Amino acid sequence: MELKRIGTVLSPFQDKFGIPRQSGLVKEVQAEIVMEPEYRNPDAFRGIEGFSHLWILWEFHKAEGKKALTVRPPRLGGNTRMGVFATRSPFRPNSIGLSVVKLEALRMDEKLGPVLVVSGADILSGTPVYDIKPYLPYVDSVPEAVGGFTEETKEHRLEVELSTEAVTAFDHLPEEQQEALLGILREDPRPAYQDDPERVYGMHFFLYEVHFRVEGQKLILLNLEKK
Amino acid sequence: MELKRIGTVLSPFQDKFGIPRQSGLVKEVQAEIVMEPEYRNPDAFRGIEGFSHLWILWEFHKAEGKKALTVRPPRLGGNTRMGVFATRSPFRPNSIGLSVVKLEALRMDEKLGPVLVVSGADILSGTPVYDIKPYLPYVDSVPEAVGGFTEETKEHRLEVELSTEAVTAFDHLPEEQQEALLGILREDPRPAYQDDPERVYGMHFFLYEVHFRVEGQKLILLNLEKK
Repeated sequence: MELKRIGTVLSPFQDKFGIPRQSGLVKEVQAEIVMEPEYRNPDAFRGIEGFSHLWILWEFHKAEGKKALTVRPPRLGGNTRMGVFATRSPFRPNSIGLSVVKLEALRMDEKLGPVLVVSGADILSGTPVYDIKPYLPYVDSVPEAVGGFTEETKEHRLEVELSTEAVTAFDHLPEEQQEALLGILREDPRPAYQDDPERVYGMHFFLYEVHFRVEGQKLILLNLEKK
Repeated sequence: MELKRIGTVLSPFQDKFGIPRQSGLVKEVQAEIVMEPEYRNPDAFRGIEGFSHLWILWEFHKAEGKKALTVRPPRLGGNTRMGVFATRSPFRPNSIGLSVVKLEALRMDEKLGPVLVVSGADILSGTPVYDIKPYLPYVDSVPEAVGGFTEETKEHRLEVELSTEAVTAFDHLPEEQQEALLGILREDPRPAYQDDPERVYGMHFFLYEVHFRVEGQKLILLNLEKK
């Protein structure tokens, strides 16, 4: 079946590296969904403001790479193979991503029409959107569900420390960006767990290039540079 | 983007009429997902049995009809128009359905390979499946989410009464089919609320043609006939 793009995500995530692994984990990050011209009509959103959360169906449009029946989830250290249908990996038969986001506002833009302002999205900026659905807690929320291998790894959180060099630049960020950056760093944005405490990682965040390294459970933010 | 079918749902729902409006509402109904030949490999499902629930992404393949920016949800009586993105209506820009189901078993079939046995599905038999993802309770479950206009209507349940004529046929059904049928009827399977207590509705259920009428909050099961 052919899907047509209905909108586009605009988010602070300019590259894959640094995106939280799942939606909702970094609640401070805001993103916007700008609709294609034919959906720039408030009618299409009538009643949506009564819902606190939405599902976004989108395309892993930057997930190039070979598709296989098994994948190696980063959360398992990158060495254990799991069936692709037992993971939320981008490398799946159909590159459809599913994220729950919090609806912060429906903004009426003079040029773009209704724009959804959402938080908690784990979605790359520029991502094509194919569907927006209301989150129905009485069917979608299953708190007693058992999360397979993710149960053991979900609590993985790092402690974030700022180097002297990073402090000044960090202090100049608007408060919501500070919170968002800390949230992303706590989630361990490394592509897979690697144990070299000397290795320096680079990541884009808004207009900044961010460098950090990780020692055990501690992440040291080395610096932020304007690009 | 082009999606390719990865599997097919086999469920007791042979026609749209009588399908629960959302997944999970009728937990007694079991369905199977049979994979396309290239995914008939247990590797693709490695680790899936650790998850209690799954997301199924599928196509509303029988939802023919004109698409509009607004729809009239049956739960609102069929007269109030809501924005299509504020509903889970099948008549949406991209006909993708999203359902959470409980994973009952991964059955190895001699011919069909791994077959997922699931319950709680609200999906028509023959429906094409495009993705299967694990349900991750720590991100997907948002019990505090606010459900918009669905909040007021979710408690709509009918009391089911069997007519003398229906009792014998009903008693001959296997117990799980009895439970499933009662579950579907309690959910009010009428296409939209209509207030004519004399009107007789017909519905397919497994091998049966089921007739009923509704008086206020009471549904009277008139008869079950083998087709």
